[in-house]
Parts: sequence; structure tokens; C-alpha cells
Amino acid sequence: MAASVVVDPDLLYLDGNSLGRLTHRARRRLAAVVDGEWGEGLVRSWDSWIDLPARVGDAIAVHLVGARPGEVVVGDSTTVNLYKAAAAAVAARPGARAVVTDDDNFPTDRYVLEGLAARHGLEYREVASDPVHGPDPGALAPALAGAAVLCLSHVAYRSAALADMAELTRLAHDHGALALWDLSHAAGSVPIDVTGAGADLAVGCTYKYLNGGPGAPAFTYVRRELQSELRQPIWGWFGRVDQFGMGPRYDPAAGVGSWLTGTPSVLALACVEEGVGLLADAGIDRLRAKGMSLTSLAVDLADAWLAPRGYEVASPRDPARRGSHVALCHPEADRICADLLTVGVVTDFRAPDRLRLGPAPVATRFVDVWDALDRMRRLSA
Amino acid sequence: MAASVVVDPDLLYLDGNSLGRLTHRARRRLAAVVDGEWGEGLVRSWDSWIDLPARVGDAIAVHLVGARPGEVVVGDSTTVNLYKAAAAAVAARPGARAVVTDDDNFPTDRYVLEGLAARHGLEYREVASDPVHGPDPGALAPALAGAAVLCLSHVAYRSAALADMAELTRLAHDHGALALWDLSHAAGSVPIDVTGAGADLAVGCTYKYLNGGPGAPAFTYVRRELQSELRQPIWGWFGRVDQFGMGPRYDPAAGVGSWLTGTPSVLALACVEEGVGLLADAGIDRLRAKGMSLTSLAVDLADAWLAPRGYEVASPRDPARRGSHVALCHPEADRICADLLTVGVVTDFRAPDRLRLGPAPVATRFVDVWDALDRMRRLSA
Repeated sequence: MAASVVVDPDLLYLDGNSLGRLTHRARRRLAAVVDGEWGEGLVRSWDSWIDLPARVGDAIAVHLVGARPGEVVVGDSTTVNLYKAAAAAVAARPGARAVVTDDDNFPTDRYVLEGLAARHGLEYREVASDPVHGPDPGALAPALAGAAVLCLSHVAYRSAALADMAELTRLAHDHGALALWDLSHAAGSVPIDVTGAGADLAVGCTYKYLNGGPGAPAFTYVRRELQSELRQPIWGWFGRVDQFGMGPRYDPAAGVGSWLTGTPSVLALACVEEGVGLLADAGIDRLRAKGMSLTSLAVDLADAWLAPRGYEVASPRDPARRGSHVALCHPEADRICADLLTVGVVTDFRAPDRLRLGPAPVATRFVDVWDALDRMRRLSA
Repeated sequence: MAASVVVDPDLLYLDGNSLGRLTHRARRRLAAVVDGEWGEGLVRSWDSWIDLPARVGDAIAVHLVGARPGEVVVGDSTTVNLYKAAAAAVAARPGARAVVTDDDNFPTDRYVLEGLAARHGLEYREVASDPVHGPDPGALAPALAGAAVLCLSHVAYRSAALADMAELTRLAHDHGALALWDLSHAAGSVPIDVTGAGADLAVGCTYKYLNGGPGAPAFTYVRRELQSELRQPIWGWFGRVDQFGMGPRYDPAAGVGSWLTGTPSVLALACVEEGVGLLADAGIDRLRAKGMSLTSLAVDLADAWLAPRGYEVASPRDPARRGSHVALCHPEADRICADLLTVGVVTDFRAPDRLRLGPAPVATRFVDVWDALDRMRRLSA
């Protein structure tokens, strides 16, 4: 499958969990959008561009996250979408006293919730998670008393721990809270079933496993049954019914369309559409199977070659309990990450002591993982 | 100057006020960013990408809006930035009872303020403006009692009326309100002096006169003296000090950097940098002189050729009082706009009866305006 992306044969790229590769499809599509649609079509191209946020959203819904058409839309960043979702949840629970997340949630999620709590006089509750195995229902339960929303990542950004979305959503609901999921490290790496899990809201990144390119806009999922009840706080012209009528007063578009705000990046949306199309063609179940094998190979080689050199596997050992990356713990992870770059291995470092290996299944071969771990071994020899 | 953009010789493009043309500079830069920085550099390219929001912001500050370095940053959409700015103003005026704008402000500005007022229990006050000449200080003054913020457009999106930023900012300040300016139709079309005018906050679009491409991220200006006092509501990792430390708790970056939220679109930011560079090379004063001449030619030809056919000029007749577009009023403007497309003239329609001609000075020749008006005349013959 590696031929689907632009490949430098000398580079071992294990950072698909941070920035996905450039696909040939995206490269061709960009050329057509830039020269044909922007350069020649100019403003007339809005006739087709206007459908992109919903069309790409539907593709993500159906192929990647287990949602129904009309439940996902693409636009704004993960951070902004998370803000909109959390703010909508807070507004929908006027008697609530708190927002809840865990201390291993992605930093921007924690900051957004902290800021929202500060603005609305709510408690910001950050529950300790297991640094390897992720959220702990027993620790979360007492924190959910009086909570408006529980926000967690489906795949933990550091350890790759895969949270049980159905169980934790049920826990949130049992306490009267809405469940907001960050799918950034999960979408495109594991099959997701937001419908089956009963998730209320979700957001996710498109520049990791979806190969949308640096800073491509994120997606938002709003369960159909909640779309008329929840209202996001940023009332913009892209979320209004009859947008180009430019009428007086805001009147939200029906469905998930009201979660759009301003003009989304068309170039990036086109790349996201190609990335999602590539994953849909490959099939998320096949990608998942390959992802488990790739990370299992990395774990096995780490045990065999790197454990004697001071590394420790810091991800769940059961491949069914982790996403498509693997964290290794080493006191000198920062230096090692920099040294690996000099021998053509791209990983990433997360403070204070984690090295992440993210062999995106759509673009990484088994030999790439083997060679990368081999270079790590030699480096530590 | 037309050779700076990709040109279809059969097309008369008078919609630079809606979507700026593709420049050759942006096209070349995109190719380098896509193939070199994304395709080959991959995540390593963040070493240079991370500076883009501030670097492009500084270029806009210095070359286009009369701000100082460190006062402008690029990221998120105009709508989201307007929300952040207005919310920060509301939070900074805890005793205020209202937010104020005018009924000719751009729709998304009005919707954002309406939503913010609804969420925070404030009055949303929309003051009538003159549909041709813009905001009326006499009408605005009584509405400013108890206001947290006055939000206006520097150049009106329909009529192109150029508001007196210094006078209206003073008016806001006299009433204890902050002045928030939307520069979307002004940036790159008229010289702006936010510093001289004492403006507190401003936002602006980069896909119109700045040629950043469809959906390119917008900019935000925060006056230096207010940067430690004002706090925007979306606390994201891109706005935190030591972003990649990913530490606990949000700690805002110094200066305007704390107004960033999530990952901005890198491809679009690169295009914006090229667009701003082109305008800086041309010089805003020369562009302004050409813009006044282009729109004056359009007004003169409209008077001579189109007035007898039922058109009326709906922009200020003094070129010093308008931006770089011209509005014509005609009861069948919608149909005319569509008919003009069939003869290769791109304008745009704004309900209920306005046709806008936006001859962006960096990319439009005088003969283009002449020929476009000539085709309009023949169409109405």
C-alpha cells in the first residue's frame, strides 16, 4: 500500500500519528483545485465547494466513525470544534457544576475545558488516568457528580490506550452528563462506532491518519437525536439557513450544518476528501488488522532489542487495547528522538520521557518498522 | 500588474472583493510546500511552519493595517476570530449590558454578536446605517450606553462605504466600549491605520484582496497595550506558552500569540504570505490610487451607460469615501449577475438588489472595467 503515498526511500517515517503523509491522490487533487477551481473557476467554484464540508463529513461518518450521513461536518480546527462541542454541552446542562476529563487527554482538550469552566464558573475536574492503560471508570465515576460533560480521547495520544467508548459513555449518561469524544488519534487507525456506543458529540483531526495535510480542518460529530437540542456558541454565516441570503438575525441551518462557522479551507478540505477516499478504498478493518500487526512487530522488536538498552514499552500489550502507535519510555527519549532523525528515522517525543512510533497502516511497510527498530538498536549499542 | 496573477484572457473578473485571484507566487509556493515541505519534510517541517502565523501576521501588521510587529496573528476564520475578539471584549467589561453593531455590517459579524449576546444575557443592538454612506455616529451614540463593544466594518461589504475608524473608535471609547473592526473588505484595498485610530481589536479576511485562496485563515489584531488585559475564550495548545511541552494547565503565550487556538492551515498560510508579499511590493498607496481610479471609471461608465437602463450607483461617489468596489442597485440585479456570467463577466449579487463590481487593483486593468461595463450595457440594450 506504500505506493499510495509520496515516498522518500531513505526515510523511515513512523510519525503518521502526528502528520500523515502526502498521498498521490491529494497531490493530483490539489493541482486540479488550485489551477482549475481557484485559478480559472474563481468565485464560481463555490457552486461545488459549498458542499465539501458536508460531503467530506458524510464520508468520514460512513467509512470511519460509524455515524450516519448528516451527523458529521468538516471545518475549523480540532480545538475550535472541541470548544463548540463542550460549550454546547455546558449550555444544555444549565444546572451543572463541572466539566470532566482525564489528565492524559490531549493538552488542547484539557486547556479548552479549563477555559470554558473558568468562563462559566464551573469546576474543571481532571481525573488521573493510567499512563499506559488509559481512563479508569472507577476513578471517573465520583468526578461525574453534577458534570455537564465528560470529554475523553478514544485513543490516548501518548500511550495509544484504546478507551471503551460504550462503557464510558454509559457512565457519563448515568450521571446526567453528555459524552464528548476526541477521535483525533483513533479516526483512520481503529474502527469506531459512535452510534453503537451512544456517543453524543465527537471531534477529530484530519491531518494524522486521514492524510489531509498540515493544519487541515477537523470534523465534528453530533448525534442526530441531539441536533435540534444542542446549539454551538459561534453563530456564523456558514451555519445559517440560506447562507447567501445574508438575512437579518441568525437562524441555524437544519442538522449538523449549523456547526459550521466561517469559510473553511477549500484546499485542505479537498485533500481530506482524498485521504478519506483512500482509507475507504483500503477498508478500515483491513487497516486495523495491519495496524495491530505493525505495532505488535514494534513491541516484539522493542522487547527483544531495546529492553536491554533501557527502553520500556509504555502502551497496552494487547493490540486490541491500543491504537496504531506505540509508546516507548526512556529517560533520554528527547535526545534519542533527535539522534534518530540523523539516521533517517522520524518518530516523536512527548515530554518527559516518551518516544512515539506511529506506523500509519496505509503508508508503512513491515520492513520500515523492522529497519527503524534496527537503527534504534544500533544507535543505543 | 495583471501578469502577477493567473489570467484567463476571456474572463473579466470583477469579484476580487469576494475571492482574490491565484497569484503566480502562491502557485509556486504551494508546489514547494506540498512536495518539499509536506511530502518530503513531513513533520520535521514544523520547525519552520510554527512561525507562519506570527510572521504572516507581522507582514500584515506592517504593510497593510498600520499595526506594530507582535500585534497581528493569522489563524482560524474571520468568524471565529470575531467571536474570540468580541467575547474577550465582553469578558473585559463585566458590567456591560449590550453589544453594538450596525445593520449593514457583514452578516457573520452580526450573527456572532447576536449569539454572544444571547449566551451572556446581553442586549444585541443593531443600529441602522446609511445603505450607501455607512455608519452614522449620531445614530450609534445613544446605542452605546452600557455597551461592551462596538463592532463595525471599515469598508462596508455592500456599498464599500469607508467608515471613519478614528472618529468611531473615539465614540466607542467615550462610552467605555472597546472598538472592534472588521477589516475584511479593507485590508489590501485601502491604507489602514489601526494604531493612529486607536482601534482596540480587529479581524480581517485573507482570501479577498490578500489573495490567500478560498477559505484561507483570517487575521486578528490586538492592540499591544491590551494584550495582557484581554483574554480570548478558546484556550488551545497553539496559544499556550511552551506549546510542545504539553504541560498541565493553560498558561497563555505572551502577546498576540495567545490568540491562536488549534493548528492553522499551513498550505493556506503559505499562500497568504505570498499574497501579502505581492501587495507589499506593489505598495498599498499605489494600490489605493489605482483602486480609486478603477472604481471611478466604473462609476463614470455606470452613469453614462447604465443609469439610463435602470441602474443606480449605490456606493459613495467620493472615491476617498469608499473602498475598492462599487455597488450598483438594480431591481433585477440577481438575474443580471447570472446573465453577466454567460458573457464572461464575473460580479456578485447581494440581496435584494445589489450588484457588486470589485476590480482588485493588483490584478485588474482599466480595460477590464471598460469592457465589463460595455458588456453590461449591451446586455441591457
